Amino acid sequence: MKRYEKLAVEIAQLIHTGILAPGEKAPSVRQASRTYGISPSTVFQAYYLLESRGLLRAKERSGYFVRDNGMPRLDEPQLSQQQIESHEVGVSELIFSVLDSLRDASTVPFGSAFPSPELFPLARLTRSLSRSMKAMPAHAIISDMTDGNPNLRRQIALRYSRNGMFLPPNELIITNGALEALSLCLQCTTQPGDLVAIEAPAFYACLQMLERLQLKAVEIPVHPREGIDLGSLQIALESLPIKVCWLMSSLQNPLGASMHDEKKQALYELLRTHQVPLIEDDVYAELYFSAAPPRSIKSYDRCGLVMHCSSFSKCLAPGYRVGWVAAGRFAEQIKRLRLMTTISPAIPSQAALADYLQYGGYDLHLRRLRHALENQQASMLDAAERYFPIGTRVTRPLGGYFLWFELPDSIDSLMLFQQALHAGISLAPGPIFSATQRFKNCIRLSYGYPWDERSEQAMQQLGQLMQKITGA
Amino acid sequence: MKRYEKLAVEIAQLIHTGILAPGEKAPSVRQASRTYGISPSTVFQAYYLLESRGLLRAKERSGYFVRDNGMPRLDEPQLSQQQIESHEVGVSELIFSVLDSLRDASTVPFGSAFPSPELFPLARLTRSLSRSMKAMPAHAIISDMTDGNPNLRRQIALRYSRNGMFLPPNELIITNGALEALSLCLQCTTQPGDLVAIEAPAFYACLQMLERLQLKAVEIPVHPREGIDLGSLQIALESLPIKVCWLMSSLQNPLGASMHDEKKQALYELLRTHQVPLIEDDVYAELYFSAAPPRSIKSYDRCGLVMHCSSFSKCLAPGYRVGWVAAGRFAEQIKRLRLMTTISPAIPSQAALADYLQYGGYDLHLRRLRHALENQQASMLDAAERYFPIGTRVTRPLGGYFLWFELPDSIDSLMLFQQALHAGISLAPGPIFSATQRFKNCIRLSYGYPWDERSEQAMQQLGQLMQKITGA
Repeated sequence: MKRYEKLAVEIAQLIHTGILAPGEKAPSVRQASRTYGISPSTVFQAYYLLESRGLLRAKERSGYFVRDNGMPRLDEPQLSQQQIESHEVGVSELIFSVLDSLRDASTVPFGSAFPSPELFPLARLTRSLSRSMKAMPAHAIISDMTDGNPNLRRQIALRYSRNGMFLPPNELIITNGALEALSLCLQCTTQPGDLVAIEAPAFYACLQMLERLQLKAVEIPVHPREGIDLGSLQIALESLPIKVCWLMSSLQNPLGASMHDEKKQALYELLRTHQVPLIEDDVYAELYFSAAPPRSIKSYDRCGLVMHCSSFSKCLAPGYRVGWVAAGRFAEQIKRLRLMTTISPAIPSQAALADYLQYGGYDLHLRRLRHALENQQASMLDAAERYFPIGTRVTRPLGGYFLWFELPDSIDSLMLFQQALHAGISLAPGPIFSATQRFKNCIRLSYGYPWDERSEQAMQQLGQLMQKITGA
Repeated sequence: MKRYEKLAVEIAQLIHTGILAPGEKAPSVRQASRTYGISPSTVFQAYYLLESRGLLRAKERSGYFVRDNGMPRLDEPQLSQQQIESHEVGVSELIFSVLDSLRDASTVPFGSAFPSPELFPLARLTRSLSRSMKAMPAHAIISDMTDGNPNLRRQIALRYSRNGMFLPPNELIITNGALEALSLCLQCTTQPGDLVAIEAPAFYACLQMLERLQLKAVEIPVHPREGIDLGSLQIALESLPIKVCWLMSSLQNPLGASMHDEKKQALYELLRTHQVPLIEDDVYAELYFSAAPPRSIKSYDRCGLVMHCSSFSKCLAPGYRVGWVAAGRFAEQIKRLRLMTTISPAIPSQAALADYLQYGGYDLHLRRLRHALENQQASMLDAAERYFPIGTRVTRPLGGYFLWFELPDSIDSLMLFQQALHAGISLAPGPIFSATQRFKNCIRLSYGYPWDERSEQAMQQLGQLMQKITGA
């Protein structure tokens, strides 16, 4: 055990025994450094580990506090168990019927896949659009289609470098949102009939894509807080001819799980041993509530095995449709595949985002957005504690804008989905997150919209619908 | 034979016998109407037919003139003959190596796939971007992703209606340029291993797409002026299990061929009899030099069999990446496929084009663009007449921005391509337009850039390179 891990265990014991009470401030980094005779950076590592495990919470400019979840009424969901085997995927119709029904603008948007557009700096982005297009030389409207806007590529590479990652310029491919990046990664690593290791529960668009490309899913259980189960993944890799693995290492959709750094590294080494490429979907990475940004698995990659996909759609500008992939050894192949299907993402969108990243105050926007989402999460958790039936379990993710609820067994989430929709409330039922339509008693709720009286009432109504079904 | 066809034959005879001399004005519509005792609209139909067959040429506000191509030194290419059989496609690498080499901005851009950006109203489009995004309600940046910008859909539908086509609103799907539309159409009508009837020569991206989706090509010869050979297509449809047909009915790339209306209708009936869907790639339709816009095959479609694909990339705003498909009975399937791969084209691009179509003066821009391209075509043809070797054949298309040259047999166009590139001139060699790498002695040259001294010199240099190879 490393020095910082030892310290983390000691402080965790202080919390579990109640010596450090919920809501109380943990010793400052300087203080702990003196007390334990270790460097401040070691203390920081320990605190970050405790934070990622949900025991501490960083408050800006005030230090670390013991999270106030010592005695919540709703427990955390547990790691689901399942057979490691491959499945044909046939869930696309169900997903579309759910998505179609979410489009009524008058419903309470707990089923929404995006945060509220009111949380994005749309007027500032319009200024960036206008300014960057006025300054663009005419030839760029055509020539930038091949490699992407050079300033945008530089700005994205700069953000990687802030996390200690120095990408060769050719590795970065701009795409029509993260979804095109993910689709291209999958296409260049598989043939119809191949096996892909995915998460259970998984992002539903991943399931649709497997179905469309006639790929088979090997579902690996995901721990609601710690991410994909490495033991199960290892069994899968050893027993099945898996071609590629697709997962979210931080703030996983729908669970919100984030793997800690050691686990990320271990997962990378496991895949490297088996020479199985990784498609790392990291679109929620900027929406962390912790003090420091989560690391990506890509940051451990030394042999170009990881395709790191992200976008601005969840944190800045959904309709601009700009994403990217840092594609390792697959870069050239993916670039060509994109040139053969959509040629290029829109040049005005790329130019606007480049300008915004350089001059628009992205970091300030992100701090505000994270703060808003963290408060909205607290409000939704608080309402769930009050209105949802006993036996309900819920995640408490350190970022993003989704909560995952495991409801009492008697509740069929597809039926609840219909009843809620009838009452003007949207939600995402569990079965759309599984190739085998598991998670029948689970739902995903979004707290991506500002919390108001209507949200509160909707939570109460949902609770009443649940109570009615359980007969409580 | 219909009334207008009879009149067309009579006037054609006047031209062929020299009674109406090259450059001479044909009788005005009113005059001809009186002379022959038929309605002005019948005269107009006859003139349009003669125009599409290259005998008359419309000059704005001055009437019809006999085309000055009675005695050109360079003949027209002839219909190529070939076996009707299916082929695996393996030309993508060659195409990429050619395309990569075209990217040097200092070369004379005869190989370019787009007209000069200087010909597009980019500053006006930037104003539309800025204005439309300022006026957009926040929720639209997310909600418009599902169905596309409603105003853009309306504006496109309005343009269809001007050509007498009234599309049901749900048929129109906005895509990331025409290429995504074409790709989605192909994906929703085929499975790996299926046969697709395509043109020979064909648009190279079509060949790349067949290769990527593991489809087999059945190449149908295309007449350099009149388009795809119906007899060959019929043989193919009767003898092979063709799943879908992909072609350009007007201003075909690379030949510039346009089918006349009766042929378009006959082709539609042939496909309908065999119930083979048609992917109609119509991206050059707005670049006609004739007095009236060409009809689409889609305009004859009564049973949703035709997927009509187009975009703004060749005539207005290449980097905006907005295209569409009027997808007939395949609309719902194609929409879902798009939602599963790129979700949506960029919302700012869509909003800007909607605003531009409504207020920007699109028709005026198109008239100017057509006029510029027509003059540039004349300059390139003129230079080719002067510099290219005897035995060269060339198309004289009624629109677009490509000439197709059939060079003396001894000229290998891939070798010429390399030598020209070395001399700072790009061009598109024939073999990239064929699944079987035919057209070895052919090249496609673009006149999409304003003609200048440098263009003139480049034509002379090309001519010298050709003369050197032929040893003349």
